[in-house]
Amino acid sequence: MIIILKDGASEKQINELVDWLHGFNVKTNLVDGVHQRIIGLIGDTTKIDMEKIQAKEIVEQVKRVQEPYKNANRRFHPDDTVIEVRGRKIGGGTLNVIAGPCSVETEDQIITTAVAVKEAGATMLRGGAFKPRTSPYAFQGLGKEGIRLLCEARKVTGLPIVTEIMDLSDIDLFADVDIVQVGARNMQNFTLLKALGRCDKPVLLKRGLSSTLQELLMSAEYIMSEGNNKVILCERGIRTFEPATRNTLDISAVPLLKQKTHLPVIVDPSHATGIASLVEPMCLGAVAVGCDGLEIEVHNDPKNAWSDGAQSLTPSQFAEAMKKIAAQAEFSGRPIDKGQE
Amino acid sequence: MIIILKDGASEKQINELVDWLHGFNVKTNLVDGVHQRIIGLIGDTTKIDMEKIQAKEIVEQVKRVQEPYKNANRRFHPDDTVIEVRGRKIGGGTLNVIAGPCSVETEDQIITTAVAVKEAGATMLRGGAFKPRTSPYAFQGLGKEGIRLLCEARKVTGLPIVTEIMDLSDIDLFADVDIVQVGARNMQNFTLLKALGRCDKPVLLKRGLSSTLQELLMSAEYIMSEGNNKVILCERGIRTFEPATRNTLDISAVPLLKQKTHLPVIVDPSHATGIASLVEPMCLGAVAVGCDGLEIEVHNDPKNAWSDGAQSLTPSQFAEAMKKIAAQAEFSGRPIDKGQE
Amino acid sequence: MIIILKDGASEKQINELVDWLHGFNVKTNLVDGVHQRIIGLIGDTTKIDMEKIQAKEIVEQVKRVQEPYKNANRRFHPDDTVIEVRGRKIGGGTLNVIAGPCSVETEDQIITTAVAVKEAGATMLRGGAFKPRTSPYAFQGLGKEGIRLLCEARKVTGLPIVTEIMDLSDIDLFADVDIVQVGARNMQNFTLLKALGRCDKPVLLKRGLSSTLQELLMSAEYIMSEGNNKVILCERGIRTFEPATRNTLDISAVPLLKQKTHLPVIVDPSHATGIASLVEPMCLGAVAVGCDGLEIEVHNDPKNAWSDGAQSLTPSQFAEAMKKIAAQAEFSGRPIDKGQE
Amino acid sequence: MIIILKDGASEKQINELVDWLHGFNVKTNLVDGVHQRIIGLIGDTTKIDMEKIQAKEIVEQVKRVQEPYKNANRRFHPDDTVIEVRGRKIGGGTLNVIAGPCSVETEDQIITTAVAVKEAGATMLRGGAFKPRTSPYAFQGLGKEGIRLLCEARKVTGLPIVTEIMDLSDIDLFADVDIVQVGARNMQNFTLLKALGRCDKPVLLKRGLSSTLQELLMSAEYIMSEGNNKVILCERGIRTFEPATRNTLDISAVPLLKQKTHLPVIVDPSHATGIASLVEPMCLGAVAVGCDGLEIEVHNDPKNAWSDGAQSLTPSQFAEAMKKIAAQAEFSGRPIDKGQE
Repeated sequence: MIIILKDGASEKQINELVDWLHGFNVKTNLVDGVHQRIIGLIGDTTKIDMEKIQAKEIVEQVKRVQEPYKNANRRFHPDDTVIEVRGRKIGGGTLNVIAGPCSVETEDQIITTAVAVKEAGATMLRGGAFKPRTSPYAFQGLGKEGIRLLCEARKVTGLPIVTEIMDLSDIDLFADVDIVQVGARNMQNFTLLKALGRCDKPVLLKRGLSSTLQELLMSAEYIMSEGNNKVILCERGIRTFEPATRNTLDISAVPLLKQKTHLPVIVDPSHATGIASLVEPMCLGAVAVGCDGLEIEVHNDPKNAWSDGAQSLTPSQFAEAMKKIAAQAEFSGRPIDKGQE
Repeated sequence: MIIILKDGASEKQINELVDWLHGFNVKTNLVDGVHQRIIGLIGDTTKIDMEKIQAKEIVEQVKRVQEPYKNANRRFHPDDTVIEVRGRKIGGGTLNVIAGPCSVETEDQIITTAVAVKEAGATMLRGGAFKPRTSPYAFQGLGKEGIRLLCEARKVTGLPIVTEIMDLSDIDLFADVDIVQVGARNMQNFTLLKALGRCDKPVLLKRGLSSTLQELLMSAEYIMSEGNNKVILCERGIRTFEPATRNTLDISAVPLLKQKTHLPVIVDPSHATGIASLVEPMCLGAVAVGCDGLEIEVHNDPKNAWSDGAQSLTPSQFAEAMKKIAAQAEFSGRPIDKGQE
Repeated sequence: MIIILKDGASEKQINELVDWLHGFNVKTNLVDGVHQRIIGLIGDTTKIDMEKIQAKEIVEQVKRVQEPYKNANRRFHPDDTVIEVRGRKIGGGTLNVIAGPCSVETEDQIITTAVAVKEAGATMLRGGAFKPRTSPYAFQGLGKEGIRLLCEARKVTGLPIVTEIMDLSDIDLFADVDIVQVGARNMQNFTLLKALGRCDKPVLLKRGLSSTLQELLMSAEYIMSEGNNKVILCERGIRTFEPATRNTLDISAVPLLKQKTHLPVIVDPSHATGIASLVEPMCLGAVAVGCDGLEIEVHNDPKNAWSDGAQSLTPSQFAEAMKKIAAQAEFSGRPIDKGQE
Repeated sequence: MIIILKDGASEKQINELVDWLHGFNVKTNLVDGVHQRIIGLIGDTTKIDMEKIQAKEIVEQVKRVQEPYKNANRRFHPDDTVIEVRGRKIGGGTLNVIAGPCSVETEDQIITTAVAVKEAGATMLRGGAFKPRTSPYAFQGLGKEGIRLLCEARKVTGLPIVTEIMDLSDIDLFADVDIVQVGARNMQNFTLLKALGRCDKPVLLKRGLSSTLQELLMSAEYIMSEGNNKVILCERGIRTFEPATRNTLDISAVPLLKQKTHLPVIVDPSHATGIASLVEPMCLGAVAVGCDGLEIEVHNDPKNAWSDGAQSLTPSQFAEAMKKIAAQAEFSGRPIDKGQE
């Protein structure tokens, strides 16, 4: 960490600051410039709150050199984290494809879709039971019943299930869920993150609409700092000025996150684009840049879907896409996960 | 609502769509163009989910004409909402100034600051007991004890207190709080919003970092649709590409929101800019454009603040600023709220 | 085009508006709603200026249904445009790789780099002679001499040359250049675009930092409306809030542009990311999603480059990347362009 | 300037780097950390190109402490720059109001509007002769004839005229213009900026749609580095995700720019919002935060304007607004400029 001092800071003020900094268990090194004086902090600054330093009267700027996360940092944990879910391994050199509808609507819908995506080659099933909707007048999800139906679909297909939690008061309902998803709008719901950090369950953490990659990693750190290291990061598009797509898929996030962290990284092309015809090319691109998985919306009857129909693939579109995805995955040296069999 | 159909939609398909639309209790009007056929929906479309229509096979685009919110809509409630809090009236033609520290730290700190802001002319006291912090290693707030200390400060000064709720499981702790604040990161925590909609307590709803004004109004609608109409909207800066300020204050949001909704609108210049020296000019600008209130961070000793020190004013800076704010408020015909006396 | 009228527009006002609209050679269709009255415009509205309609007193909103571009529109020109450059075909089902340094610095530098990229499989040579630099104190390019050196490099390697024009007063200097590049900062330099529209020379048009895809297509339309249809579009990253990369590569722009227009689309991963280690994965991703070409910065000695060294590949990194790019291109059914041989 | 070295840089490499840095006429100071080694540069680094340092093999990051502009920097020129234009003084403690139509359309239109704005209290006349329009099919301005008509309007009213240059080839046509405006799309047309730097004429430089304040100041530096110090900066809204307004007025730019630079700063609320009803409140806000001037679109008949009608005020709306603006300007201690009389 580097501290740039204001012009005219007195020796006394600097000495006081330096003494105070030593309280954080770091060494300091004072650099004298013509226009500026700078203090370099030496030691572990991960847990030092920059704001506290910034507030000091004689401080002009504070610049961080070290990343402010530790558990999620590849520098300290060079090996890839591999997360096992009913025999599938996320982050272990294969590609996992999580497919299913935006919302669980009926038993018929979820079972039909689950069977179809399984047949097409999906490795996990997604489906929303609790739905964060912009409007209070839109369908809010089946709740507990939705989770029950997902479990039914798992019984039929054997696919592990992934579904979103919206509030920590519902946490007990997720006991049978294989992967708990934290949606983009909850990426900085820190109370929820801490509670999930105390569970022994994989968490699929989606990047917030306007969250930086560092903030995403800090949210992962919230979960990990409570003891749960099974965090899967998901790039799902960020909010930009471009109106042609629902969001803008930040595809360079994939290799960049893989450099910064040992956690698996997956991509959700459905929410990133909001347009069904863009899902397949985005899947191929995401696999080509090195993602560990994909999360894709598939609905047995998108034109009658209760939510997100415009970005959902039909089972036959998905089957078509999966052929190409599987070939690309094979080509990229990261074949579709076959499970334990 | 206007539905633009794809080229080549058959009469049969269009008839089916029209029949289905009639199920929403609206009339339809088919417009024939050379390149396009369009269906206009006539009636109350507020509660129709555009996505469901968008998903239909023959639909190219759906465009909304009416706003998707009703309770918050000035069109349906032309008179300004006025929210009374211990004799102060937010939205009633006066200016309320909510001041205080980012975090409640100690009894001495909050009492000292409360007394100082009261003296300088603040009309309410703010202070964080539960703090949403990007890093799990940063100070997370005093929690319940923080609320107790705020109540103490209210006893001493008579100022109503405003503090942030982070999770609905804490809701009982807010029984004595005068205004419950929902932070930017929780603006779309819909479970929390619905719970607050069932309380009889004013809610100060901050705009999300990358939320549109329409999304802000939809979040207000969540609270109001459950029966609580006491919602105060707060512009606190949005995330843009500009790195010179912490966020970018979207000042045109103030008059625009006042056109769209009858709810009071306040401005938080401290979080919007993140720079203490910009707080005063932003306050004057916000008053000049017609806001109903300001929320300002003041700390008795910013350089030792546990959070947000760089954007906090000292009591004497605040007193200086308040003189100008009061004069501007008077000039703008919206004088500082004097309370019941 | 759809015109939504304000409440309370009189019959007389509507009749006047409708008469005025008929002057644009379109038919109109009036839709009566409970809350709204709407006019649909039927006919060719491509060249109608929405702003003029928006300004009318009784108009609340105008919404465009048809795209406002014609020459660039795939709807009117379904076949892909193929642009021939010295035997290479951009947009004809192959992949062209344009490689070379950010700036032409010396004869040795450009020849050495050109020979190296040719050997590694590049199909064209890039190099900046006129450099748009944020600071007036940074290297501004060799100008005319830079173009001469590029021609030398073309003589040695046979590679067609691509270089950027910054001002139309320099246009004569580009007589020997194979493809004239318009940089992101000049995407809306309409005077320059029109002048290039009167040349018979391929134009590589880079997307502006904060330009929408529609604006990019409108800028292509500027060139095409003057008679030059040889326009190559280039996605090179957009400006967002994310600081980890120089820009954010909007990769979904590739398939989306291919849907909207018949013009070739290429990707510049060097400027999009600003980080050399991300260039290779972004190239693979861009090929997988269907781009017609890549533009990559390569420098024989990046650590001594006069500009953009941090995002430039060394010749050996480029050779390594080209092996993978060629394999991916082959796999994606869009092999590297072999030229006429 | 601070240079953070990569782990594992050898003494030999560091010595080479340090020697090379000394070539820039600065001193260096090496700081040894546990995880990092850092070099501080001491001396005038304004003109050092960060990219060149960033490209060095052993360099992880370069961080600038000093601003990269010199002529525009208040640190080196503490006194406000005052620009005289026919007896008006921009930046000298008064408020200048530049008003007029988006485009000059006819003699009658510009004279009528000019007379009206003069009467209402405007201090300068604006009008576009060369118009940057997104579509090639939209009205492109009257060109040379437009400038002639502006000069006529000046003869009638005595108001100095402000009009936009789009290309340096037109520069001779601007000989009689009082202030040459550089539009947002040309803010980084560096060739044009340099040419204007060689004129002895005030330049009104508008911030680019997605330009940072530092980039705006660097563009001012381009003009100033060629010898012309008469630069007026203009905040006119930036592009963000918010669709409710045409752009987002970054009002905190005003006090922030006034801190960073000695140049005058004005605000254009018409382009910032794109909505006529928001112009007046934004004017009041801009004056309250300390701007030196306003640029406002006024048209004698907005509903028949050839461009930007939706954001233009009528003469009577403008007159109404001017009463409030003049009162606010008086209140803020920055009264309307009365000229020499």
